[in-house]
Amino acid sequence: MILTVTLNTALDLTYRVRTLTPHASHRVSEVIERPGGKGLNVARVLAALGHEVTVTGFTGGATGRAVQDQLATASGVTDALLPVSGATRRTIAVVDERTGDTTQLNEPGPVVTPPEWSAFQEAYEDLLASADAVALCGSLPPGVPVGAYAGLVRTARAAGVPVLLDTSGEPLRRGVAARPDLIKPNADELAELTGSHEPQRATQDARRRGAHAVVASLGTGGLLAATPEGRWRATPPARLHGNPTGAGDSAVAGLLSGLVEHLPWPDRLARAAALSAATVAAPAAGEFDRGVYEELLDRIAVTGEVNAA
Amino acid sequence: MILTVTLNTALDLTYRVRTLTPHASHRVSEVIERPGGKGLNVARVLAALGHEVTVTGFTGGATGRAVQDQLATASGVTDALLPVSGATRRTIAVVDERTGDTTQLNEPGPVVTPPEWSAFQEAYEDLLASADAVALCGSLPPGVPVGAYAGLVRTARAAGVPVLLDTSGEPLRRGVAARPDLIKPNADELAELTGSHEPQRATQDARRRGAHAVVASLGTGGLLAATPEGRWRATPPARLHGNPTGAGDSAVAGLLSGLVEHLPWPDRLARAAALSAATVAAPAAGEFDRGVYEELLDRIAVTGEVNAA
Repeated sequence: MILTVTLNTALDLTYRVRTLTPHASHRVSEVIERPGGKGLNVARVLAALGHEVTVTGFTGGATGRAVQDQLATASGVTDALLPVSGATRRTIAVVDERTGDTTQLNEPGPVVTPPEWSAFQEAYEDLLASADAVALCGSLPPGVPVGAYAGLVRTARAAGVPVLLDTSGEPLRRGVAARPDLIKPNADELAELTGSHEPQRATQDARRRGAHAVVASLGTGGLLAATPEGRWRATPPARLHGNPTGAGDSAVAGLLSGLVEHLPWPDRLARAAALSAATVAAPAAGEFDRGVYEELLDRIAVTGEVNAA
Repeated sequence: MILTVTLNTALDLTYRVRTLTPHASHRVSEVIERPGGKGLNVARVLAALGHEVTVTGFTGGATGRAVQDQLATASGVTDALLPVSGATRRTIAVVDERTGDTTQLNEPGPVVTPPEWSAFQEAYEDLLASADAVALCGSLPPGVPVGAYAGLVRTARAAGVPVLLDTSGEPLRRGVAARPDLIKPNADELAELTGSHEPQRATQDARRRGAHAVVASLGTGGLLAATPEGRWRATPPARLHGNPTGAGDSAVAGLLSGLVEHLPWPDRLARAAALSAATVAAPAAGEFDRGVYEELLDRIAVTGEVNAA
C-alpha cells in the first residue's frame, strides 16, 4: 500500500456567500465539508486511481470525528490516524458568488504533546513495514518539532521505503537535508528553499541540498523535474481555468502512483501534470475531473534529456 | 423548570484575526467554541441565576454533538434536544484584533423533515407539563413551517404555561397573532412588525396585534414595556462599551426569571436591563459580568405609570 502522512489534518469547509464584506453579517448559501490536509487529498486521488492507500497523522475532537466519518465513506482509504487530546483544525474558504474569489481562514491546529508525538513515530514505523512508498505532506501542528520531517524521512530510508516530502519553510529545509527520494515544491517554496527564483537553477540546487529528485510545480508553467536519470518539463496543452486548490496534491498523487508502478519519469510527469490540470478543471475544489484527466494524459508535452550514463 | 426552545441551534465559533482582508489568506490566532442559538444563550443565563432550565429544539451531526458535549458541562441546563438527520449549523464571528470589529458568517441550518417536526411538537407538549414558563427563541431552520411559533404559542397557552416569543419577520408576525404572553423585539423587529419607527406607538400596536405584553429592547435606550398593568421604561445609568452580542438574550432571561418569581414589572425590567448591560460589559461574547450585574441592579432607572384599574 501507499502511506500518506498528514500531521495537521483539517476539516475543510467551503462557504458560498454573495460578497464578503468586512464587518457585515452574511448568510452562507452553501456549505461543503470534506476531510482536508494535503496527505488526505493525495490519498483520495490515489484511491480514485485504484491504489491501496493508508492515511496516518493526528485526529482529535468533534472535527476529527467528522474527518474520520467522511474518510470511512471514501472507498479505498484506510484510516490509521492517531488520537490527540486537542481538536483537529478547520479551514474555511469563503467564496464570493459573483467573482469566484476566495478568502481563506485557517485555524492553527491542536497542540501535539511529546507523548502523542512519540506514539505517532512508533505507529509510523510499524506502518512503513507494509508500505511501498510514503508521502509526508503539509504543515506541522503546534508542538511537533521543526525537525519532525527530517526524522520521518530518515526512518523511511532506514526501512527502504521511497519517501516523498511536500512541505514548506524550515520543516522542508531540514527535511531535504535528510535526503528524501523526492520533493515537490511549488515556485514559492522552491525559491524560499534555495534563494533562487530561476526554476532550472533552483531545482538543481535543491538536489545538491539533499533531495534525490525534485519536481517543481510551476502553476500554468507545468512541472519541472530534476532527477538522477535526467531533466524534464511537462506542460499541459492549454491553460485551464478553474480552482487551483488541491492541484499540487493531485500532482503528488500522480508522482507517487508512477513511482510504485515503476513508470519511466516522462510517464510519471505526464500523469502528474494531467491530474493536476484535471483538478483545476473540476467544479469542486480538490476533486479531479476524470474525463479531463484521461483526455489530457496523451496531450501533455514532456520535453527534456536523459543524463549520460 | 423553565423551558427554552431553540429550533435553529448553532455551534458558535469566534475567530480572532489580525485584519480581515477579502481574498487573502488568514491565520486564525484564537478559536472560541460555544453552544449557540438564542434559546441556549437564555438558558445559560437562567442557570447562572440559579434557575432549573431545560433546553429543547434540534441537534444533528458532529456540530450538534459538540453543542451537546458542551451543554453537558454547563451546570444546571438539562438537554432535551431532539435529533435530526441534518447537521446543526455553525455561526462564525471573525473579530479584527486591531479594531474589535466583527464579520459574521451564518450557515443556514439543517433541513428539518415533516416527521422530525412532528416528533418535536409531541416532545414539546410533554415538556410543557413540567414547565413554569417557556421561551421560543430565534430563527426557524429550513423545513419548519413559517407558522411554527404560532402553533407552539397556542400549545403553551392551552397547557396554561406563560410563553415568551423572541423572533423576527413573518414567524414573529404569525406568532404574535396567536397571543403570546410576552414578546421582546428589538427596535428593528418592532418596526418590521408594526410599520412604526416610534417605539411608544409601536409597542402599543404590537399589543393590539395580539401580544399580551411587549418589552422592546432599544440598545442604549434601555427597555420599553407595554403591559396590561402599565407602561415603563428601564434605563441603565450610563452607556456601557463592549460587545452587544447576547444582550437581548440576557434581557429575555431576566424577564423570564422575574415572571416565574412573580416580581412586579419594574423589578423584572430592572433585572432584565441590568443583565443586558452586564452582558455588553463582559469580555466574552454572550457571557454576563456578575459584578457589573449586581452593581447595576439598584441603579437602573425605571419610570412609568400603572394603568388605571
